[in-house]
Amino acid sequence: MPTFTAPIKDLQFVLHDLLRVSEQEIEGFADLDRDFTGAVLEEVGKLSSEVLSPLNVVGDTEGCTLENGVVRTPTGFKEAFDKVREGGWTALDAPEEFGGQGLPYVMHTAVNEPMVSANMAFNMYQGLTHGAFSAILAHGTDAQKAMYLPKLASCEWTGTMNLTEPHCGTDLGLMRTKAVPQDNGTYKVTGQKIFISAGDHDMSDNVIHLVLAKIPGGPDGIKGVSLFIVPKIRHDEDGNLKDRNGVSVGKIEEKMGIHGNSTCVMNYDEAEGYLIGEEHKGMRAMFVMMNEARLGVGLQGYAQAEVAYQNAVAYALDRLQGRAVTGTQNPEGPADPLIVHPDIRRNLMDQKSFVEGARAFTFWGAYLIDRAHRNDDAEALGLISLMTPVIKGFLTDKGFEYATAAQQVYGGHGYIEEWGMSQFARDARIAMIYEGANGIQALDLVGRKLAQDGGKHVMAFFDMIKTFIKENEDHDDLKTQFLDPLKQGSKDLQAAAMYFMQNGVKDPNNALSGSYDFMHMMGHVCLGYMWARMAKASFEALDAGADDVDFYQSKLATGRYYMQRQLPATGMHLARINTGAESVMALDAASF
Amino acid sequence: MPTFTAPIKDLQFVLHDLLRVSEQEIEGFADLDRDFTGAVLEEVGKLSSEVLSPLNVVGDTEGCTLENGVVRTPTGFKEAFDKVREGGWTALDAPEEFGGQGLPYVMHTAVNEPMVSANMAFNMYQGLTHGAFSAILAHGTDAQKAMYLPKLASCEWTGTMNLTEPHCGTDLGLMRTKAVPQDNGTYKVTGQKIFISAGDHDMSDNVIHLVLAKIPGGPDGIKGVSLFIVPKIRHDEDGNLKDRNGVSVGKIEEKMGIHGNSTCVMNYDEAEGYLIGEEHKGMRAMFVMMNEARLGVGLQGYAQAEVAYQNAVAYALDRLQGRAVTGTQNPEGPADPLIVHPDIRRNLMDQKSFVEGARAFTFWGAYLIDRAHRNDDAEALGLISLMTPVIKGFLTDKGFEYATAAQQVYGGHGYIEEWGMSQFARDARIAMIYEGANGIQALDLVGRKLAQDGGKHVMAFFDMIKTFIKENEDHDDLKTQFLDPLKQGSKDLQAAAMYFMQNGVKDPNNALSGSYDFMHMMGHVCLGYMWARMAKASFEALDAGADDVDFYQSKLATGRYYMQRQLPATGMHLARINTGAESVMALDAASF
Repeated sequence: MPTFTAPIKDLQFVLHDLLRVSEQEIEGFADLDRDFTGAVLEEVGKLSSEVLSPLNVVGDTEGCTLENGVVRTPTGFKEAFDKVREGGWTALDAPEEFGGQGLPYVMHTAVNEPMVSANMAFNMYQGLTHGAFSAILAHGTDAQKAMYLPKLASCEWTGTMNLTEPHCGTDLGLMRTKAVPQDNGTYKVTGQKIFISAGDHDMSDNVIHLVLAKIPGGPDGIKGVSLFIVPKIRHDEDGNLKDRNGVSVGKIEEKMGIHGNSTCVMNYDEAEGYLIGEEHKGMRAMFVMMNEARLGVGLQGYAQAEVAYQNAVAYALDRLQGRAVTGTQNPEGPADPLIVHPDIRRNLMDQKSFVEGARAFTFWGAYLIDRAHRNDDAEALGLISLMTPVIKGFLTDKGFEYATAAQQVYGGHGYIEEWGMSQFARDARIAMIYEGANGIQALDLVGRKLAQDGGKHVMAFFDMIKTFIKENEDHDDLKTQFLDPLKQGSKDLQAAAMYFMQNGVKDPNNALSGSYDFMHMMGHVCLGYMWARMAKASFEALDAGADDVDFYQSKLATGRYYMQRQLPATGMHLARINTGAESVMALDAASF
Repeated sequence: MPTFTAPIKDLQFVLHDLLRVSEQEIEGFADLDRDFTGAVLEEVGKLSSEVLSPLNVVGDTEGCTLENGVVRTPTGFKEAFDKVREGGWTALDAPEEFGGQGLPYVMHTAVNEPMVSANMAFNMYQGLTHGAFSAILAHGTDAQKAMYLPKLASCEWTGTMNLTEPHCGTDLGLMRTKAVPQDNGTYKVTGQKIFISAGDHDMSDNVIHLVLAKIPGGPDGIKGVSLFIVPKIRHDEDGNLKDRNGVSVGKIEEKMGIHGNSTCVMNYDEAEGYLIGEEHKGMRAMFVMMNEARLGVGLQGYAQAEVAYQNAVAYALDRLQGRAVTGTQNPEGPADPLIVHPDIRRNLMDQKSFVEGARAFTFWGAYLIDRAHRNDDAEALGLISLMTPVIKGFLTDKGFEYATAAQQVYGGHGYIEEWGMSQFARDARIAMIYEGANGIQALDLVGRKLAQDGGKHVMAFFDMIKTFIKENEDHDDLKTQFLDPLKQGSKDLQAAAMYFMQNGVKDPNNALSGSYDFMHMMGHVCLGYMWARMAKASFEALDAGADDVDFYQSKLATGRYYMQRQLPATGMHLARINTGAESVMALDAASF
């Protein structure tokens, strides 16, 4: 049975040593001192280890069931959801006027990570609700906010996002679900939506569906899409429940993983719906939430790698097999523990150096979101807009890769469901797909974000790295171990961007054939940048006489591993990109 | 529902254009002309598409069940197994004296591939039997051969391999199963074995277990391990079944995939067993089969990628989503097919160029095995011994990677079991683990095979590539498109080998920290070499006025893709290797 312990020291390190949150001049950040965040993280860590983690395998094994139109969640989920609700964990960053605690998004992110590591499928029920909350907060009328936000903040009611239909996912302009205006100002929504996470369940009194649909007579394609609130159970103006709306669950999908979450086919049959925002501006309302939602999915990627890594380490310390090539290390035992073997360490170091870098990257992204929202900082908004596809695409690809690598440490036992390592890989797999498949993230990055606002944001990104290198290169160890490799990685990335500029205009396929490689390359440079900053913070802590010398030394050793063994991937990606579209597009469709 | 079509043209291309099998001076090869192999492959292709492939999802969904000690296979498996048996597919390469057809191993491999693509879990029942057959053929007494080989060749009885115990897999010296000699020359075998593929089932009259066990009083560790035949049901000297032996199924494991195969915990309780080969020389008997078994697992890796690729292509041609960036290509439809998008093609070309290279590599390996066995060719034996961990490790890592990549083409549908893409990835995952986890393959390659016979085989490998380049560099296109990149890849690989030589002696961790990267690097160089040879064959076919110009042009385009976009990975692996052990071994075990 796998276990999970919240990596509180690492979370605190990123918040305080790296981001120095309490020193930032952003509303609400001054309160985030080490003691406060430590106390909060201890609490959520306890909840995650003791309540959520033990339910992870249960959720995988039992899954959700649909009987007579009623969806049941796995044993223990409802009680656990009550505990999460009672602890106030669902509304940490919601504004206080709507029942939240008004904490920064970076703190929501820090609290979210252990819950996602412990039980990703479970956490999605509140995750989707958070998304619905944000959409109504950004675009709802005052009456809609007053009605729905407090109930969504507390997860008394939960939320869903309804985009995909059987024949369209990425290309939502093909959507067929329609919303017909009624005389009373409401709409009748009819159509089928698929892949609806947390689509229905038995843990809340009501489910508030946010549904994209087309109002007949509106513009064709994506420009004619509007967003609606469709409650599962209709209610009066005080929120008292009335009768069932025309919404039903067609079926629960059998998936590769996240079995604990009810992924539903939702059928809308003249269901009563209420427009959010303007007619035909539904995609705009959706896009507002995307930076947050995609950052949340990137977090899922590395959070699964984190819990898989923890278990792989435990197994590598415990399992006795073979002897160290440099001489027996456990003479009392019949064999040495796996961890003595260089290739096991190589594998664990790959995982560790990725996860810690990914955490820093994600928290930094969350901090940029806070800066953008709370300080109305356009530069931060531009930067997080550029980073978002990288956080989502790179961290979920690698998160799955390393969850799989952790499974490998277990040998044959990794393939047996009882040991739990398969689940981490199977659950992590979805994060590469939903909230925009990773190929779409790469397209967004190279086809849209690079050139956004005249390329201002990517220039700012390169400047930021250059400035950081320049300001710190008088520190010899930092320079040779971290800044020099970062400079090389950044140079490779700039060369790729240059290749796109020079060759993408005459044939956009030259750029788009390299989009996926560029996304990975940029991911490596971002993690390299994070490791350089974490190294700087670690050197400073050691110079200042920090108590926990081992901790900071380990950080430096892990960072050096990343710079030496992961960052050089940029060269390979550049080589791929520089070959352009020719070999990618050479074959006729019939020759595949 | 996924489908499968045997890639007969590609199989024929490798057998005839690349390997020119019928021209080889190896016993039995002259019969392998294009018509003969074509007819055989047509037949097995039909069986695979029509009988085995439709049962793949059934096997995954139903799995195997254990009730009152009896294992039942999924619906339809027994009837299909009868068809495979009746068609003579189980004994293609078995000697004729034991009921086989005496065909070369390369032909067995070519026939095996479509069956594995169509239904990997199903194919393992005969695959394990083939392994047991080989062990008895190599080490059994004449009486044992006469008794067991005909029945195993026909799969009237099936076989298993029993190595792993709960506390030991890789380190078999820790084994506890014991075999106590009896006065009548038999042994009483007692102990528990786990992860026994095809451990028991309802498709054959008897199951012949090959069991590793220790004879009390023998040498400690791996040197005291012997190999035994333990039949599920005892039999008389004519093979008539008598009573149940002391063998029972403890349970069927719940696995991530290959549900159609019964992976059993086997309990031996004073079961009657018969020694194969000499006492305490059991590992030697096992190792003889390893080149074949590991090649077979490597084949599983790319064969799953092949079928996943076929389905991804079909989906990419069918699914309409978005418009080509260079202008609408399907103006009649609501959107263009996925295949117009560069990143979808990038993904499909990654898969295609890998699978076709992997097939060539594997068939070449099978041909080396034939040369080694049939011509008693020590050079071929040395080369295949060197290649074996690469075929197993590299092709299964990449096979899983690309089965996962094919799943990604389906977007959300890829995660839903009903579409079948998840199964290909889940099934492919085991191939990285069993028959020696891939980390062990890397250790075997770098720790043993490189230095074997004074490094003779790796030198011969480099010479072979060098000679090929030299002999063909007057062909301009071949040189610039294939030989130059191959030369660079080979140079990187030699630099890595040199690094190991120079740094591995003073600290073996310097070599073993890079073993996994070296295995991948060598895999890329081998596939690059195969592509160069396939390109040469394609140029020659085109020059000779071959009818199917498109086919050979596609081969060249696919090969160019590999050389441009895959082979450059050698540079990254070399960079990782050159950093040695320091960053890999830096942390205390407690700091993980």
